[in-house]
Amino acid sequence: LSIDSGLFAPIFTTDELLAATGDRAWLQALLDVEAALAGAEADLGVIPAGAATAIAASCQAERFDPDQLGRAARLGGNPVIPLVEALTAAVPVEGRAWVHHGATSQDVLDTAAMLIIGRTLAPIDRDLAGLAGSLAALADRHRDTLMAGRTLLQQALPITFGLKAAGWLVAVLDVRSQVAAVRSRLAVQLGGAAGTLASLGGDGPAVAAGLAARLSLAEPIVPWHTSRQRVAEVAAALGQAAGAAAKIANDIALLMQTEVGEAFEPAAPGRGGSSTLPHKRNPVGAAAVSAAARRAHALLPVIYSGMVQEHERAVGGWQAEWLTLTELLQLAGGAVARVAETVAGLEVDEQAMAVNLARTGGLLMAERVTLALRGTMDRGDATRAVQAAGSRVAQSGLSFAAELLADPAIAAVLTPAELDELLDPAGYLGATTTLVDRALRAHRESVA
Amino acid sequence: LSIDSGLFAPIFTTDELLAATGDRAWLQALLDVEAALAGAEADLGVIPAGAATAIAASCQAERFDPDQLGRAARLGGNPVIPLVEALTAAVPVEGRAWVHHGATSQDVLDTAAMLIIGRTLAPIDRDLAGLAGSLAALADRHRDTLMAGRTLLQQALPITFGLKAAGWLVAVLDVRSQVAAVRSRLAVQLGGAAGTLASLGGDGPAVAAGLAARLSLAEPIVPWHTSRQRVAEVAAALGQAAGAAAKIANDIALLMQTEVGEAFEPAAPGRGGSSTLPHKRNPVGAAAVSAAARRAHALLPVIYSGMVQEHERAVGGWQAEWLTLTELLQLAGGAVARVAETVAGLEVDEQAMAVNLARTGGLLMAERVTLALRGTMDRGDATRAVQAAGSRVAQSGLSFAAELLADPAIAAVLTPAELDELLDPAGYLGATTTLVDRALRAHRESVA
Amino acid sequence: LSIDSGLFAPIFTTDELLAATGDRAWLQALLDVEAALAGAEADLGVIPAGAATAIAASCQAERFDPDQLGRAARLGGNPVIPLVEALTAAVPVEGRAWVHHGATSQDVLDTAAMLIIGRTLAPIDRDLAGLAGSLAALADRHRDTLMAGRTLLQQALPITFGLKAAGWLVAVLDVRSQVAAVRSRLAVQLGGAAGTLASLGGDGPAVAAGLAARLSLAEPIVPWHTSRQRVAEVAAALGQAAGAAAKIANDIALLMQTEVGEAFEPAAPGRGGSSTLPHKRNPVGAAAVSAAARRAHALLPVIYSGMVQEHERAVGGWQAEWLTLTELLQLAGGAVARVAETVAGLEVDEQAMAVNLARTGGLLMAERVTLALRGTMDRGDATRAVQAAGSRVAQSGLSFAAELLADPAIAAVLTPAELDELLDPAGYLGATTTLVDRALRAHRESVA
Amino acid sequence: LSIDSGLFAPIFTTDELLAATGDRAWLQALLDVEAALAGAEADLGVIPAGAATAIAASCQAERFDPDQLGRAARLGGNPVIPLVEALTAAVPVEGRAWVHHGATSQDVLDTAAMLIIGRTLAPIDRDLAGLAGSLAALADRHRDTLMAGRTLLQQALPITFGLKAAGWLVAVLDVRSQVAAVRSRLAVQLGGAAGTLASLGGDGPAVAAGLAARLSLAEPIVPWHTSRQRVAEVAAALGQAAGAAAKIANDIALLMQTEVGEAFEPAAPGRGGSSTLPHKRNPVGAAAVSAAARRAHALLPVIYSGMVQEHERAVGGWQAEWLTLTELLQLAGGAVARVAETVAGLEVDEQAMAVNLARTGGLLMAERVTLALRGTMDRGDATRAVQAAGSRVAQSGLSFAAELLADPAIAAVLTPAELDELLDPAGYLGATTTLVDRALRAHRESVA
Repeated sequence: LSIDSGLFAPIFTTDELLAATGDRAWLQALLDVEAALAGAEADLGVIPAGAATAIAASCQAERFDPDQLGRAARLGGNPVIPLVEALTAAVPVEGRAWVHHGATSQDVLDTAAMLIIGRTLAPIDRDLAGLAGSLAALADRHRDTLMAGRTLLQQALPITFGLKAAGWLVAVLDVRSQVAAVRSRLAVQLGGAAGTLASLGGDGPAVAAGLAARLSLAEPIVPWHTSRQRVAEVAAALGQAAGAAAKIANDIALLMQTEVGEAFEPAAPGRGGSSTLPHKRNPVGAAAVSAAARRAHALLPVIYSGMVQEHERAVGGWQAEWLTLTELLQLAGGAVARVAETVAGLEVDEQAMAVNLARTGGLLMAERVTLALRGTMDRGDATRAVQAAGSRVAQSGLSFAAELLADPAIAAVLTPAELDELLDPAGYLGATTTLVDRALRAHRESVA
Repeated sequence: LSIDSGLFAPIFTTDELLAATGDRAWLQALLDVEAALAGAEADLGVIPAGAATAIAASCQAERFDPDQLGRAARLGGNPVIPLVEALTAAVPVEGRAWVHHGATSQDVLDTAAMLIIGRTLAPIDRDLAGLAGSLAALADRHRDTLMAGRTLLQQALPITFGLKAAGWLVAVLDVRSQVAAVRSRLAVQLGGAAGTLASLGGDGPAVAAGLAARLSLAEPIVPWHTSRQRVAEVAAALGQAAGAAAKIANDIALLMQTEVGEAFEPAAPGRGGSSTLPHKRNPVGAAAVSAAARRAHALLPVIYSGMVQEHERAVGGWQAEWLTLTELLQLAGGAVARVAETVAGLEVDEQAMAVNLARTGGLLMAERVTLALRGTMDRGDATRAVQAAGSRVAQSGLSFAAELLADPAIAAVLTPAELDELLDPAGYLGATTTLVDRALRAHRESVA
Repeated sequence: LSIDSGLFAPIFTTDELLAATGDRAWLQALLDVEAALAGAEADLGVIPAGAATAIAASCQAERFDPDQLGRAARLGGNPVIPLVEALTAAVPVEGRAWVHHGATSQDVLDTAAMLIIGRTLAPIDRDLAGLAGSLAALADRHRDTLMAGRTLLQQALPITFGLKAAGWLVAVLDVRSQVAAVRSRLAVQLGGAAGTLASLGGDGPAVAAGLAARLSLAEPIVPWHTSRQRVAEVAAALGQAAGAAAKIANDIALLMQTEVGEAFEPAAPGRGGSSTLPHKRNPVGAAAVSAAARRAHALLPVIYSGMVQEHERAVGGWQAEWLTLTELLQLAGGAVARVAETVAGLEVDEQAMAVNLARTGGLLMAERVTLALRGTMDRGDATRAVQAAGSRVAQSGLSFAAELLADPAIAAVLTPAELDELLDPAGYLGATTTLVDRALRAHRESVA
Repeated sequence: LSIDSGLFAPIFTTDELLAATGDRAWLQALLDVEAALAGAEADLGVIPAGAATAIAASCQAERFDPDQLGRAARLGGNPVIPLVEALTAAVPVEGRAWVHHGATSQDVLDTAAMLIIGRTLAPIDRDLAGLAGSLAALADRHRDTLMAGRTLLQQALPITFGLKAAGWLVAVLDVRSQVAAVRSRLAVQLGGAAGTLASLGGDGPAVAAGLAARLSLAEPIVPWHTSRQRVAEVAAALGQAAGAAAKIANDIALLMQTEVGEAFEPAAPGRGGSSTLPHKRNPVGAAAVSAAARRAHALLPVIYSGMVQEHERAVGGWQAEWLTLTELLQLAGGAVARVAETVAGLEVDEQAMAVNLARTGGLLMAERVTLALRGTMDRGDATRAVQAAGSRVAQSGLSFAAELLADPAIAAVLTPAELDELLDPAGYLGATTTLVDRALRAHRESVA
């Protein structure tokens, strides 16, 4: 009996990722390692060429039953033990004696994990690239689309939606760098029962090199059975991917609020709706991404505290990695895929952005007015005068401009026309355009 | 496509727990809630009796495809939305208009989660009870079996294996108390779209009471859509179960070490062995339990930080609970089951315990000798004299007794016979028997 | 040199909690245990009465330097070792030989931890009670204050602010129950070097009972040096407290948003303001509470995975508890205190609630209209007709009522007057009042 | 009132690290940013040169009281607000108007955090380098020191202590690479109130570049107020450092066990001893490192889940970083320092290693015997024959060699002399020397 979660899992990840990390994929990765090991050994004359051919021919996942292997794995503690038994039985007689030659279970499982990671990071990185492309397009298109910048959920100063998208974009580019670094570190594991490669005599290092070459993995300095740095690096990169995705998703959920309404996940029949509340536009994508990221981030300490592995093979820390890595790939990849889809179809309501930006009646521009006054007035006086005008607005019902000009000290410095200009958010964007351009340049360089 | 992990999951949990928390079980729990809701509403005349009967007849998990529902759930964000649609289509026409009447998706999912928890805690508690029974038997049998007590992995003072088992036992009894408390708190969820039960008019509270009665769940004071105390309590109890199990498993793994060899997981053909290293007796159960506990404990913050749920329904914190609770039940329950099995068949090597206890040549009894000297000698002098004698042993190769008597100050106080008696570990057990008896009494009371 | 964080810590906790968990408090708790131990032993004639008096007289925290003890603790691994040395030196000669008699470092440290927990839970529970009182007052006062219920951050159905407060209240009452349960479980630790109480001969259990009585702690069944259930229970209760507090704080931060503006943390000069952005009303309390809760929840696995303690004393799991418990108390207590203060002074803008509730032009009442139509129309037809009318609103600019009546099928069922009534949110509150009353009753019972 | 933990903190970290991350260090870092900001602005003529000089002169941590600032920080939510106020008051009049010009609190706090990280990573990396050096020396010296390789805490095959040290070494080299990568990513933060640099008009990017140059930090593409990638990278590297340290410490604690006794933390008067149990040699360093690593790893999700920051400034996720980063630096750095000290003084008992290796009477060499037989015998037959001989040892009391030769099938293949050679662990080390050399080469390259 397997963990089966068809009911919940698809909400948080994609079919592609479930397939890339499922039983069949793991089985094939384990078998790919066995086949490549035999191949590398045959290349060096360690085992007969015919044995390697016979082994390779049997290394097809369809020929083995993962549920049966999983149950059998209870005895020995990992699925490689029964798999090697089943594979040996399946291999023609000339290969049988050479199955798994010189390897220990962990060699095969760790190397297979590296394959699974590499094979799953490929679509994840493709989705990250797609997301980056969509974000670059958004940043470019909305370079001048004014909206309220919000700090601690309060309107602070005007920004453009392009700048917001540029910030999201740079984060995704950073994640891609991490993912690229991690991919280059994926390495073969081959050490034999205690990491000495003893049963391969003097051929161990050459076999390890051959195995690495056949699987397109790096060759490590020494076996890393209980040195889990590269596993931790994978987890960190996936945690970053989930974090960057969830940041974007959460911002969109906040923008979708009934009272804000500035951007929306793409609409589709039945999507995010409620049968009984037809007016709703639920951020269902954001909710799924948030949930996936929460789970992914919680799993990081499993990998990191699991680095404390006993002597030459661990009692728990290693075993805890298998499903944790599997889930990290599913969850982080799922979060990225969902956000990529959301951003690609994001609906932006520029008018709502403008309306919300105007909602404080210019109070949002207080900093600019204060700075303008500071040329003439004392710094503290200017701050206090603008604050006072701002706080009078609520009572008087007058405009911020009117209240500012009602203060003789301010009126002495600024004409109504000057004040109007100061209160125009489009004029107070600082380096916004420069920053958007920088982000777009970084994106172009990343795809060059 | 579902998460499938037949290859790894069985190592960490049992078939029974996988079944109790799998798609079929979740589907049936969701349907049980829909049926009970209709039933409760019919009891009160809120919907026609015939409708409730028609609905109940369709509420069979086999009639629905979890994978299809899971994929459809991507649109609305939870599997209840497509399930209600599919159920409505499946229900005879007289019931169709009354499916899911007055409920929101979260009502059904939360109540189903409570059912899943209750139904899965039953076998977990059964296994805890079995484990407690085995531990009580061990404590009783080995009440006088001397072994080294070890602190910071160093031999400290003699204890008995019965006392060690008694300590394990009391921890398990504590966990059972927590589990019992949690089970009594499992409650129905019914609030409708915003927690007001608006669409049930004045009947809401009565329907909720009826639903609770039909499902043998508690009736909460108010709907708890975004007040997740009881979910956190479940998580805490499961975390405790995993912790207590992993403590025992880890102690056994340490006792199984080649250099210690005092207790062993039960032997079975193929179990814990290695095909190439026939002398090994791997603590594969302990490794699995450790891995399960690591993952379970890491998941706790998903639930606890998920308590911060937005307004009347969360964007992520709630959605993250579904698979997290599922895994917590699988992992904590799996850890308990595996340890129960291990302890039931534990092999204890009393002779190895005795040999190890003698390994320090009596140095282990230094505290007792020091205390005996303190009747006559100054406290500091006694401590220093015993320490000095102890440190001379390594150089001289003489026995600790000989080195003690070589110190005139000690020889002036203790005769060789008195010293021999002092160095007998069986005479320095303090309250050990009393403590074992207390634990056994607590166990008897727990099953009374 | 100590951890000093005067710069950041006060943001997240209170002076009272910092004092209750600081070095001085810990030192005094450790000394209280030493004094009570000597006292209990003197009561039983295990040590001379004069020794106990002499020891007790020296057990004053001011007489010892925590920084010096902490540095000295590096050698032995815990601060009790140097403290016992320093205490022994400080005690008059008649007591000197009896300091720490029969105890091991962990006995003293664990019992002191229980004292610290008990002493710190007292003000935390006082603040929880105060918070519950404020919430009850809010629930009562705003029993009929209409506002939008929001699910997934979208307006869903009308609720009252009283109901929201009632939900917060019940969560706080649940936390108080957990805290009360935990307080009753705080127990003395006394086992000696390996948990056998060997050095106290036959007097061990009686000394433990006397120690418990003197410190008003429970007497455990057996020493719990490596059975950390009660520590885990404390952590869980504190995690719940932080979670309940952060849920309330987060809701308030969302209500404070510029575009929502329905409730506000209490104003004070300089509070939540920005010198350069005078219009802002930052939810600084909510930010602090959120940060505190995030840190508290992350610490839970330190305690839970720390339950896996080796044999009779742990190599890491125990040592990790000291600062973790200290921080959990500071953070959870700090979160509660800050939210209690916020809720006590919460500013509620009932008019803003009404304005926001009207913002969808009645779309919020679609469920009610649909249900009303279902008496006459087919369920699916009714749903579709209402949804269609709702979606026409955006294009036409007409009111929801107008669009509904524009549908002949709807107009055939509902008169304009009937529709007006249906669109009145005050009429669609279901069990809201009943639920508020239930929560208030639970609160009254909790303080009875 | 500050968090003060002089009683516990020194056990887990060093005075140097406490100083580098304490209030005084944070204050100075914040002031360094203010001074550099003014300096960069003066360089560009944005503010008068005299103002920058006046500001810089006041930017001395001793002039400010962290406890007072911390308490004042409760109002505005971060300590920069009161610090800017206090600094402004302290600055001579010509500079006063230009303090903090164009910056927002988060600009200063984030940049100061980068300074603190950079300044604290320096000693941490120095200790990692020292640790690597000690490990290289161990690997070199013990290249041929035979010991048992242990998998799942069971003796598996012979290794050398040099190989074990080489594995530890490569892990530390990996950590150093991560730390180096992280240090190069530390970047200045400057965006103003909403990330647009609005109040600096067109000068913003140039000021940011100048600030970066003055502080020797990188210049980011865009402000990263709510894009926390680099913070997460820091946390990951520190998590790796703690993990690598704790792995080594845990191995040493296991080697120190009374029943193993192969290596020991360096001895010192009072170190790891117990006053009442003079024979003990407690792994107090390992316990401290384990506790530090547990806490450090648990904190990772605070940073990673904190990446989900709202819009342009977070409500909690950012605020949670401050003490979390501080503790991560203290804990990871503390773990590294303690392990560096332990390894530098590690006592290795080569004789105990040899004795333990011989403990199974050659059973450890079963794999080698099996492989030797497989040249002649069938693979399965060879495995079974060797296993059978091994299991007869326990009953018969004969040697493994005798039992092997008692099997005619084996005796037909191997002479006693051949068998003797096969049972010599020194002859079954595979690539051990090659691997040690590779690790040493990698170390030499890392310091080149």
